[in-house]
Amino acid sequence: MSDAHFARVALIGIGLVGSSLAHVLRRDKLAGEIVACARRPETLAAAERLGLADHVTHDPAVAATGADLVVISTPLSAYAEIARRIGPALKPGAIVTDVGSVKNAAIRDVAPSLPAGVHFVPGHPVAGTEHSGPEAGFAEMFHDRWCILTPLPDGDAGALDKMTRLWQSAGMKVVTMDAAHHDMVLAITSHLPHLIAYTIVGTATDLEDTLKSEVIKFSAGGFRDFTRIAASDPVMWRDVFLNNREAVLEMLQRFTEDLTALQRAIRWGEGEKLEDLFTRTRAIRRSIIEAKQA
Amino acid sequence: MSDAHFARVALIGIGLVGSSLAHVLRRDKLAGEIVACARRPETLAAAERLGLADHVTHDPAVAATGADLVVISTPLSAYAEIARRIGPALKPGAIVTDVGSVKNAAIRDVAPSLPAGVHFVPGHPVAGTEHSGPEAGFAEMFHDRWCILTPLPDGDAGALDKMTRLWQSAGMKVVTMDAAHHDMVLAITSHLPHLIAYTIVGTATDLEDTLKSEVIKFSAGGFRDFTRIAASDPVMWRDVFLNNREAVLEMLQRFTEDLTALQRAIRWGEGEKLEDLFTRTRAIRRSIIEAKQA
Repeated sequence: MSDAHFARVALIGIGLVGSSLAHVLRRDKLAGEIVACARRPETLAAAERLGLADHVTHDPAVAATGADLVVISTPLSAYAEIARRIGPALKPGAIVTDVGSVKNAAIRDVAPSLPAGVHFVPGHPVAGTEHSGPEAGFAEMFHDRWCILTPLPDGDAGALDKMTRLWQSAGMKVVTMDAAHHDMVLAITSHLPHLIAYTIVGTATDLEDTLKSEVIKFSAGGFRDFTRIAASDPVMWRDVFLNNREAVLEMLQRFTEDLTALQRAIRWGEGEKLEDLFTRTRAIRRSIIEAKQA
Repeated sequence: MSDAHFARVALIGIGLVGSSLAHVLRRDKLAGEIVACARRPETLAAAERLGLADHVTHDPAVAATGADLVVISTPLSAYAEIARRIGPALKPGAIVTDVGSVKNAAIRDVAPSLPAGVHFVPGHPVAGTEHSGPEAGFAEMFHDRWCILTPLPDGDAGALDKMTRLWQSAGMKVVTMDAAHHDMVLAITSHLPHLIAYTIVGTATDLEDTLKSEVIKFSAGGFRDFTRIAASDPVMWRDVFLNNREAVLEMLQRFTEDLTALQRAIRWGEGEKLEDLFTRTRAIRRSIIEAKQA
């Protein structure tokens, strides 16, 4: 039996990440039984049909009862209510984790409702696609990607260790950091890129109708890469921006200053400034390829 | 013999697009002989080594002498000088075309130097990768992409027809439009996305060193897609922005307004506005997938 084995796992939310994790749990036989919880009956039906869970329920408290591991993978705005409902149902020694993209907010919304003796390990597997829902999941999604755990200062070392091994089983490289630092790093690597992609795709949808059809036709020139990102789950991303407001606004401010400087260089025909920047950015791409994250 | 056959083709510039076209000419036997012209000796050596040309020269006039088709595929800033040098060497009936991303500027810089009896067909195959140089080319790069030709009002119909068939041989869908309209469409589908990608990657490179290494590590959250775009050829893109200034600044202005509105929505916690936009942008992605440009 693997060290990362759990007798009963409750997956609260069974979208892209929840269902991918279910595939890993099945593949590696890491769960005695899996309970999936979702609000919408069609989501639960899909989870059953895909064999992602042994039981399904719309009630988080029912899912959490008797669970050794509870994984919250819903949009952030549902966290506080879920925590309130599972709190009284959790057994001593249970581990609660999540996969949300903002860690300070996860801690703020979940920790206060958990009883003593239950171990909370906030987590964020940095992996995904632009697709959503239980059909979108696949075990390999986590492979070779990073998982960031942001343990609480007084968190349980054994629980942290067990979560580390679970994500390692999924093929992830696991690192721990402070929640606030996580939120700042992700603001620039993930949240700001999504915000900008959503914006430019929105700008294009507001164009005159004749131009709009041509935008779709000629999207191969760069635009289509943004549309892929801007096809990500709307509710999940709404919650990310509302819950990582300060860090996103800080990074957005820096970006806007840099964009204004480039705008000025274009207006005044300062070719050297443009070429200098474009040469520097090429080097970053090389670093990402070397770090095998391309 | 195909209708798109040319006895002698001169490729002025043999980077990503020029070399990809050379592969097509070879594969489909569309050229009796190919002459490649580039400034740097190592580029010419690579073109010879890769079998992309039968002859090489650093002199555009030598390349153009006796050519039935001259393809300019250098950065835009070289166009005016190349046109001045090839003008006197061109034979009557020769076709001159280019592959540049800004068509008004191409016409402005090339047309005045071409003698009467030489046919100029400005063109833009909308295809590419983030790699550059003669080693980066491959015949399939054009497959199923769009090629935009922007013929002059008094342009030769036969020459336009021949260029249409050449790009069709390369697997492209060919469309014609007015040069100014092309420049506006590409400003939003290609130039603005590149400008924004360059900017955000630049913003990240200016971060404190500790944050910077983490940006590379955790780039899978969205950032790495921007780094791919921001790895495109610096000189080519410098020239695009300098030569499509008005259209880029116009689209950038719209983008900035939209970004400011989103920034305000985040600051004031207006979740509904965010979700509305993020839902609309998802639909555009579906259109691109349906248009087979994903």
